[in-house]
Amino acid sequence: MTQRGRFITLEGGEGGGKSTQLRRLARSLRERGLEVIETREPGGAPGAEAIRPLLTQGDTARWDVLSETLLLAAARRNHLVETIRPALDAGQWVVSDRFIDSTRAYQGAARGLDTAIISTLEAWVLDGLMPDLTIILDIDPAIGLDRAGRRIETSAPASPGAGEDRFERMGLAFHQSLRAAFLDIAAAEPGRCAVVDAGDTADVVEARIRDLVIARLLPAADRG
Amino acid sequence: MTQRGRFITLEGGEGGGKSTQLRRLARSLRERGLEVIETREPGGAPGAEAIRPLLTQGDTARWDVLSETLLLAAARRNHLVETIRPALDAGQWVVSDRFIDSTRAYQGAARGLDTAIISTLEAWVLDGLMPDLTIILDIDPAIGLDRAGRRIETSAPASPGAGEDRFERMGLAFHQSLRAAFLDIAAAEPGRCAVVDAGDTADVVEARIRDLVIARLLPAADRG
Repeated sequence: MTQRGRFITLEGGEGGGKSTQLRRLARSLRERGLEVIETREPGGAPGAEAIRPLLTQGDTARWDVLSETLLLAAARRNHLVETIRPALDAGQWVVSDRFIDSTRAYQGAARGLDTAIISTLEAWVLDGLMPDLTIILDIDPAIGLDRAGRRIETSAPASPGAGEDRFERMGLAFHQSLRAAFLDIAAAEPGRCAVVDAGDTADVVEARIRDLVIARLLPAADRG
Repeated sequence: MTQRGRFITLEGGEGGGKSTQLRRLARSLRERGLEVIETREPGGAPGAEAIRPLLTQGDTARWDVLSETLLLAAARRNHLVETIRPALDAGQWVVSDRFIDSTRAYQGAARGLDTAIISTLEAWVLDGLMPDLTIILDIDPAIGLDRAGRRIETSAPASPGAGEDRFERMGLAFHQSLRAAFLDIAAAEPGRCAVVDAGDTADVVEARIRDLVIARLLPAADRG
């Protein structure tokens, strides 16, 4: 019987280097002989990718917080059913750029949606599946937004991520409450979550993440 | 102070003539001097109309029933916040082609989603607002699907509604359970709902609907 794969999520505010670190982590897991799926939210499956532009583009006020959260939950359910669960069942590892904690932080803590609604949706959508490890890339929002802003400005109009700045435009106070929310989640669920200081160079952050994954998810015999 | 407008929804399976009857009802209300907004689901506001093609087009299996219901709830919330509530508050009447009962019937009864999920979503999204009158256009699904099929075949590719046949393609047994579900809703909520036999000519059906609206929603002094 195939052993179920492991599910790792990378979380945190804008400009913390999640997508860079995701690629590096996936490469290092593949070097250990693991099959790895790299994915992201909102998106990660055809239906969810069709929902993504509704969330990441356009006016910051285009959705009230409940509509936004329901759209995210629809996309997450599609991602889970079509991509994550089949991969884990086939023994592959799944590494996702954002997952449930982004909803808790963005729509719950920062935009103020009732946390009972967020928990209820989470239980329906996940249906028992939770990340095995969540790595929170922590960075001062003033630095993170500056990094994210430079990435957007230098994107060609048709390149991936171009124009996907709806959340970046929500202001510094919004991103400060986001940061606090991610740190609160990590403190409340230390068994699943770990905070990594993302203010250092990409190489240093990569090494910290690799050490965490080895310590928490790889059997001692495989740590070589 | 402006008197709050009234909210009427038209419900039922495919080919029952909802959109024709909606136009006729709106016209007859306008002839009485009322301001009337004609709207529809999924859609009825810019965000919700952007969600609509994800639901009405493509493969019948593209969404599991929970994703589909969450998408509908997101669209409904946007419709309510952006269109329905502001119109009612301004004293306008709102007539919608489909609303909550379509979700109860399509995703609940016919596709089998837990009714507790559907009721919980309904309570979050509506936030206390319910239709004042729901008219269920009842028709034998074999006749209704035949009518709906002819409408789709004769649509030019770029015309409104062309290609929006994802639910029509779900088969006769699906549509029979839909019909039963709408009749059950009407039986359970007779104060809000009324069933109209939609098998007659459009003129006959129109007169039945007009009589219902007069009896239930117009003050005796205005019935002239």
